[in-house]
Amino acid sequence: MTAGRGGGRAARIAREARSPTTGMPGVTSHGGRNFEPLTESDVARIHRAALRVLETVGMGMLGEQPPGVKAMLEQGATLDAHGRVRIPEALVEDALAGACRHWTLHALDSDRALEIAPGQTHYGTAGGAVSILDFHQRHYRDTTLVDLYDAARLIDTLANISWCYRPLVARDLDSLRALDVNTAYALAAGTTKPWGITFSLPQSVAPVIELFEMARGRPGSFFAEPCCHSVQGAGVPPLQYAYDRCLIKEAVIRAGVPLMIASAPQAGATAPAALAGTMVQVVAEALAGLVYVQAIAPGHPITFAPWPFVSDLRTGAMSGGGAEQALLMGAAAQMGHFYDLPCSVAAGMTDAKIADAQAGFEKASTNLIAGIAGAGMVHESAGMHASLLGCALESFVIDNEMLGGIKRAVRGIEVNDETLSLQTIAEVNVEGPGHYLGHQQTLALMQSEYHYPALSDRQAPAAWQDSGSSDILERARTVALETLSSHYPDHLAGSLDRKIRERFDIHLAPARMRPGSHWAKSEPTVTGST
Amino acid sequence: MTAGRGGGRAARIAREARSPTTGMPGVTSHGGRNFEPLTESDVARIHRAALRVLETVGMGMLGEQPPGVKAMLEQGATLDAHGRVRIPEALVEDALAGACRHWTLHALDSDRALEIAPGQTHYGTAGGAVSILDFHQRHYRDTTLVDLYDAARLIDTLANISWCYRPLVARDLDSLRALDVNTAYALAAGTTKPWGITFSLPQSVAPVIELFEMARGRPGSFFAEPCCHSVQGAGVPPLQYAYDRCLIKEAVIRAGVPLMIASAPQAGATAPAALAGTMVQVVAEALAGLVYVQAIAPGHPITFAPWPFVSDLRTGAMSGGGAEQALLMGAAAQMGHFYDLPCSVAAGMTDAKIADAQAGFEKASTNLIAGIAGAGMVHESAGMHASLLGCALESFVIDNEMLGGIKRAVRGIEVNDETLSLQTIAEVNVEGPGHYLGHQQTLALMQSEYHYPALSDRQAPAAWQDSGSSDILERARTVALETLSSHYPDHLAGSLDRKIRERFDIHLAPARMRPGSHWAKSEPTVTGST
Repeated sequence: MTAGRGGGRAARIAREARSPTTGMPGVTSHGGRNFEPLTESDVARIHRAALRVLETVGMGMLGEQPPGVKAMLEQGATLDAHGRVRIPEALVEDALAGACRHWTLHALDSDRALEIAPGQTHYGTAGGAVSILDFHQRHYRDTTLVDLYDAARLIDTLANISWCYRPLVARDLDSLRALDVNTAYALAAGTTKPWGITFSLPQSVAPVIELFEMARGRPGSFFAEPCCHSVQGAGVPPLQYAYDRCLIKEAVIRAGVPLMIASAPQAGATAPAALAGTMVQVVAEALAGLVYVQAIAPGHPITFAPWPFVSDLRTGAMSGGGAEQALLMGAAAQMGHFYDLPCSVAAGMTDAKIADAQAGFEKASTNLIAGIAGAGMVHESAGMHASLLGCALESFVIDNEMLGGIKRAVRGIEVNDETLSLQTIAEVNVEGPGHYLGHQQTLALMQSEYHYPALSDRQAPAAWQDSGSSDILERARTVALETLSSHYPDHLAGSLDRKIRERFDIHLAPARMRPGSHWAKSEPTVTGST
Repeated sequence: MTAGRGGGRAARIAREARSPTTGMPGVTSHGGRNFEPLTESDVARIHRAALRVLETVGMGMLGEQPPGVKAMLEQGATLDAHGRVRIPEALVEDALAGACRHWTLHALDSDRALEIAPGQTHYGTAGGAVSILDFHQRHYRDTTLVDLYDAARLIDTLANISWCYRPLVARDLDSLRALDVNTAYALAAGTTKPWGITFSLPQSVAPVIELFEMARGRPGSFFAEPCCHSVQGAGVPPLQYAYDRCLIKEAVIRAGVPLMIASAPQAGATAPAALAGTMVQVVAEALAGLVYVQAIAPGHPITFAPWPFVSDLRTGAMSGGGAEQALLMGAAAQMGHFYDLPCSVAAGMTDAKIADAQAGFEKASTNLIAGIAGAGMVHESAGMHASLLGCALESFVIDNEMLGGIKRAVRGIEVNDETLSLQTIAEVNVEGPGHYLGHQQTLALMQSEYHYPALSDRQAPAAWQDSGSSDILERARTVALETLSSHYPDHLAGSLDRKIRERFDIHLAPARMRPGSHWAKSEPTVTGST
């Protein structure tokens, strides 16, 4: 275990070793501009209003004073008569100036490491679903550790999902420590992509890091090459630090886990109903989180993660798939650009319970806006349903397909002398055959200019009928079933797995991790319960 | 019938009578900027390249020289040795300077008229589907006149679809003239929203206009208050005027029908495979169309309608739902803004054959990009499948739902002193209850700040299961069935309908236009064939 405060020399050297050139870059645009739902003046007004909120309203505290607040008070924050922590503008500006802007999210498979930097967009999972859609029937059941393992190995095969943050909570474990350690194990066993975990206890951080280092076969490597990131809010909206969460966050920071500085208030419930007001509050909260991190570990790898959620004000329930949600996360990405920080947003949520057209249009709207707004890391982008309460294995497959198209859209249109095609147009129309099929430019650009989806139907109606009139959910189910009955990654196999199981209390039965176990194709009605 | 060349005094007075203030404005953004897939420099390069194509490659001619070309030659265009019409930059610039930028698309119900102008976005239908998904089984059958009437009265009830351009071709008619007249009748009988028709013959234009004037009860009113628009291409891509189409277009113009100056080449087949090259060609074609219109009827109401389509280069077939399609139409809207012209794009297409998640994410991606790119009139935005070869009645209902959200997204985020919510944030956090539920701002903004979808599922998983675990396709089918079995608009009823039927050979049987006919709820397996 490497541990230590982020401010020391060793930490700085370690951070410098995290070369931003070693990771896979995200999707970037050829040109054009990001979608900007806010005017420049709107952005400035939201920034000024957030500063004013931090200076005049400040952050409340839920529970005892968290240790990091002490550091903040030493650096210029003050306590007011209401016991709230007022944060002056200078402290915010210092935090912004000193924040880490480029880092690498490592992975067990080094080819799958990701370069995190402003302007690079990656899509991955996150969430904490407590229920999963039964694979064969239209009902939700409680999520289990096997579900998490299954989701991880499915994600391992899906090219457009760049990391595997645990999308669901294994509810069949009897303690928070067992939950954290077994969550880490299920991810590590299921995929060689970068991992992500929300920790339940500060005490879990050290064993989880140790487990990840064992899985990579590189003891002591985590601090310099973090292969897991964490979404950890500073507190409880509106505008409160929470003692328990701050302790977890500090443990995460000390271990070197890159932190998504998240705040997830819900417009109309824990943030103002006015979308602009929600932006003010969520930016204030994320800035308060950044000040907190910088106070205890300057330069710690982070993303700025204002996650403004939405309430359906008819019921007060969260609604993750609406237009307001898309706009808010687009605006969050825009604020991230304003601060020149790598940014995380939540998109790809839907209120639908099943992968129907509603799920399709809600997920596409939010993921597309996030991408063209230039969000850096898009969390929750695949697999989720019921505004994060549920998930569905088939939906990871469908959403991966959708994300392939969205990434193509984010890339944009490449304009240069060659692509402007003046010579080609003249040839084809004056001399040539009057069409471009078979032209050398067409053949040359066929692969680079176009994205060819794998699961989407592009047949003529008659051919579609002849092949069974399937919908994408049926085709995704077939793909998921084939993957889950055959793809059992073996990078933890044998003695390494035995060592991990000797060191930790692993609840995932080895019998579940072999071909021919519960996902055998011959047993289509067996679901993934333990 | 009003007819006449657009350049005369009477025509100018008539056009001035088309007050832009009488129509319903489209969705506009509170602020922010349009999504711009092209840089400013890219836009300028595409514009310059399109001018160069028109000057050096020019437009070929399919068939005889169309009459409008004679006018263009008198105004400065030239014929080259290949028999191609070269169009000099000055002619294009004059056409751009003189183009009509604001007009009203009238409707039988005057409250449903639309203001067409740069910066106003409306969504409506278009298309020429030749097959329709059976309402109860997964197969496509040939489209009929009754299908068109059914689609029109369904659209009549769908709030986010602003006009009814004929989305399908009635294939059960025995002549092109019967097709044009009966298409007009089915639209006029089915909806009081603005109509849209693609004419098959120049000779059909006068009778169709007469039928529309009879339906509105205002003989001679069409030229001053056009209640139908038409998408008519200048020719056949790449870069050709087509004699037959030009004759139809001239008849349309003489009758005062607002014209979508469309060109719809297919990247990789009838346009370059390079997306930038496709933009160059399609802009050149649309400009050539504009020059043609301005040469014969300066100031005729138009939209600039570059409709760049996409080929799947693995098969050569059109693919309307991919990311490239979304980007191209976004770029088309951006070129429309560059010219400060009202613009039409095609979006909402999908390759899917049924309203599944693929249809959802493809339709949302293209419609959303069109909207946030500031496209003026979005054609094909609802109901279409199979890259325009097919349509589905349920899909009009689903897509109307989706468009409600997209229009909310286009509206954007309103930022002002009130919405920034500083006072509300201070009250709630320092004095107040620590949440915003029930706050006066929340109650005040509940209806204006949020869009509440009607058909989308926002229940908790357990409630969804208790209510039958439906998907949106099932719910849309119920809505469509209820509408089609009850909504028989009667604005053409009685003596007016008799007069129309005496004047024209109408094939839509009156028996099909009464409650209790083929769409009775008690006969759920009866489909809409004649």
